Amino acid sequence: MITEEEVPLGSLQREKLNQAPALLAQAGVDAWITFDSETAEGGDPVLPLLVDCAFTWQTVLLIAPSGRRLAIAGRYDAPLLEAEGNWDEIVPYDQSLREPLLQALERTIPPEKTSPRIAVNFSTSDDKSDGLSHGSYLLLEQYLQGTRFAGSLVSAEEIIGNLRSRKTPDEVARMRAAIAQTDRLFAEAAAFAVPDRSEAEIYRFVQERMDERRLGYSWDRRGDPIVNLGPESVIGHGLPSPTIRLRPGWILHLDLGVILDGYSSDMQRCWYRRRPAETAPPPEVLRGLQAVNGAIDAGARLLRPGIEGWQVDAAARAFVVAQGYPEYQHALGHQIGRLAHDGGALLGPRWERYGRTPTRPVQEGQVFTLELGVMAEGCGFIGIEEMVRVTRSGCEWLTERQREMWLL
Amino acid sequence: MITEEEVPLGSLQREKLNQAPALLAQAGVDAWITFDSETAEGGDPVLPLLVDCAFTWQTVLLIAPSGRRLAIAGRYDAPLLEAEGNWDEIVPYDQSLREPLLQALERTIPPEKTSPRIAVNFSTSDDKSDGLSHGSYLLLEQYLQGTRFAGSLVSAEEIIGNLRSRKTPDEVARMRAAIAQTDRLFAEAAAFAVPDRSEAEIYRFVQERMDERRLGYSWDRRGDPIVNLGPESVIGHGLPSPTIRLRPGWILHLDLGVILDGYSSDMQRCWYRRRPAETAPPPEVLRGLQAVNGAIDAGARLLRPGIEGWQVDAAARAFVVAQGYPEYQHALGHQIGRLAHDGGALLGPRWERYGRTPTRPVQEGQVFTLELGVMAEGCGFIGIEEMVRVTRSGCEWLTERQREMWLL
Repeated sequence: MITEEEVPLGSLQREKLNQAPALLAQAGVDAWITFDSETAEGGDPVLPLLVDCAFTWQTVLLIAPSGRRLAIAGRYDAPLLEAEGNWDEIVPYDQSLREPLLQALERTIPPEKTSPRIAVNFSTSDDKSDGLSHGSYLLLEQYLQGTRFAGSLVSAEEIIGNLRSRKTPDEVARMRAAIAQTDRLFAEAAAFAVPDRSEAEIYRFVQERMDERRLGYSWDRRGDPIVNLGPESVIGHGLPSPTIRLRPGWILHLDLGVILDGYSSDMQRCWYRRRPAETAPPPEVLRGLQAVNGAIDAGARLLRPGIEGWQVDAAARAFVVAQGYPEYQHALGHQIGRLAHDGGALLGPRWERYGRTPTRPVQEGQVFTLELGVMAEGCGFIGIEEMVRVTRSGCEWLTERQREMWLL
Repeated sequence: MITEEEVPLGSLQREKLNQAPALLAQAGVDAWITFDSETAEGGDPVLPLLVDCAFTWQTVLLIAPSGRRLAIAGRYDAPLLEAEGNWDEIVPYDQSLREPLLQALERTIPPEKTSPRIAVNFSTSDDKSDGLSHGSYLLLEQYLQGTRFAGSLVSAEEIIGNLRSRKTPDEVARMRAAIAQTDRLFAEAAAFAVPDRSEAEIYRFVQERMDERRLGYSWDRRGDPIVNLGPESVIGHGLPSPTIRLRPGWILHLDLGVILDGYSSDMQRCWYRRRPAETAPPPEVLRGLQAVNGAIDAGARLLRPGIEGWQVDAAARAFVVAQGYPEYQHALGHQIGRLAHDGGALLGPRWERYGRTPTRPVQEGQVFTLELGVMAEGCGFIGIEEMVRVTRSGCEWLTERQREMWLL
């Protein structure tokens, strides 16, 4: 499903693993443990940053602040890890990993260390840092009971958030390549849509092109792309309608994300289908696009290292409301990387479901979407989504912006 | 990746949801809650039994012993659930699901009920019942704090184990279809292997056929199929070698699983490549296959509702050891269904890493693999894996057994 096979085994993970020691030191922890069971179902979302394989048995990946990397893996899983060449020591086990785990901790954390802190992957705010299941957490606690490591488990949220979000040049290059594929699909879909294709037809057309090109889906393929035609379409993650067909005077809106070499795009574009003799979109469409782009501009102007995401969101939100449109019911932007929703700091309002992510300071090297939409009365949904990378003092656009309403 | 698209939306889930009320009553719980965040990464492994879609926001699926089904879903996810038609009530939310969750619990659990029991998806034994992340568990506890539901969370391990493992006729039919595809691939791979293909060539050949036929991979595609040629091959989940090529006097061993219409196969087969003028395999190969099949027979004879899996495993294990071979370092059999490793009761030894799964009584309707292998000195690994369904009084073979060593 993901066209990663041509990439040398473990090379991307090596770059990410090299980032880890500084992040552990910054978080003040003595070890970081990723503990997972069988990962055929997906497993802990941090795993693809650490390893290039899946596991069939329980596995422990232990990283020390010194940079030393130790894995405890089932006998039959160990050769896969060895092939990646990124682990200083791989301990295979047959029946239980409790003893090898305790021995590894003994060697990693000096005995004079009182109140050691062992980071594990849970978070009430960031689901991408929350890959440890509750049962596995209880198991780990059992393993540590009666040892000097009892009660030492702390959240690895900060480590994972930083590891995932500080994109390496290789990661950014991969996202640019995914964006180029997305632009190409947008152009093809728009040409296909006229004169009167249905939402479902356009959806299938795009998916067929994606499958041909072995592009992955940035989110559930049932909702990728999202296709909206005109004012009656279901906005959000609804299914494309087989009966709603493009008509003159309507907006075609696409929300599309592809995965190429393991990295995602997530973009929205829109087009206006002219009525006979119309040479330009009607005023409400132009006004809508200006409101959307103005809000994106307002957010982008504030986006830089150190700012908190809710401030960026608030500027965009205030702008679109000042133009007379309702607030959008989501965040202005999310991080993107391996996943369309890559977790960590969010450019969003301080709503309960976002946890602490809107108050985390933005950092250099993070890649965000900037996205919102408004309804144009009688014409449809005008939604735009761009992608930006945070630089030392601001942000740079990874996408070529849509500043004009495109005509069909 | 999975060729499920032609199946009517939510039909398989409807069958499984209909099984739930009796399982809740049996477990003595007042509600069963599945609580998950964004599921693009895979999410809780129980979800595909309940819903036919993925979620972008936090979602609660609440099932009452009465059979009533209520979902609390993000505004943009709700239409996907509605399209499935399986939920009595869908509550969309924008900012937080705390209030709708508490209201739903109030309506579901009568106020006179003291010490209510709300089952949630964690388990220290069965990772397929352990889909609730630790952070989400903490969040749920926060939501319930200060209400009459505080302290009411219990494990849904028994409910999920039963729901997943009691296969409906539709589920068994899908597995039979996956087995038929696997048999076809085995035959094609064996024909392709002679005279001297490498492990990597056979592996690619099988994967190309699978991709052409839009078959899914029952486990990580990097290790599906497992291809072993001769005595020097890495047994287990190692990568296929580009330099080890089939030679006369060697065993070709394949471990292959495909997913068709959402359901998996997992089978092992082996072949002997004759030396010039040889008409039958050498005695050590025949003896090895007899030991493997004798052990499978010994296990199958005991397999029936009520028996504990470790007893079945012990019979097979004792048989193969009595034949002078070392013990296999895994379980004799695992359940199979949507996943190759489908969780719940296991036909395995009481080793720590298997938790309580080997002592869970076997039930009618469960589908297990029966698998083991031995080394034949100088020839290679003889591994066989069959699939059986537990009937009222014993078990029936879903696979056509390999009783003879096949010759190449």
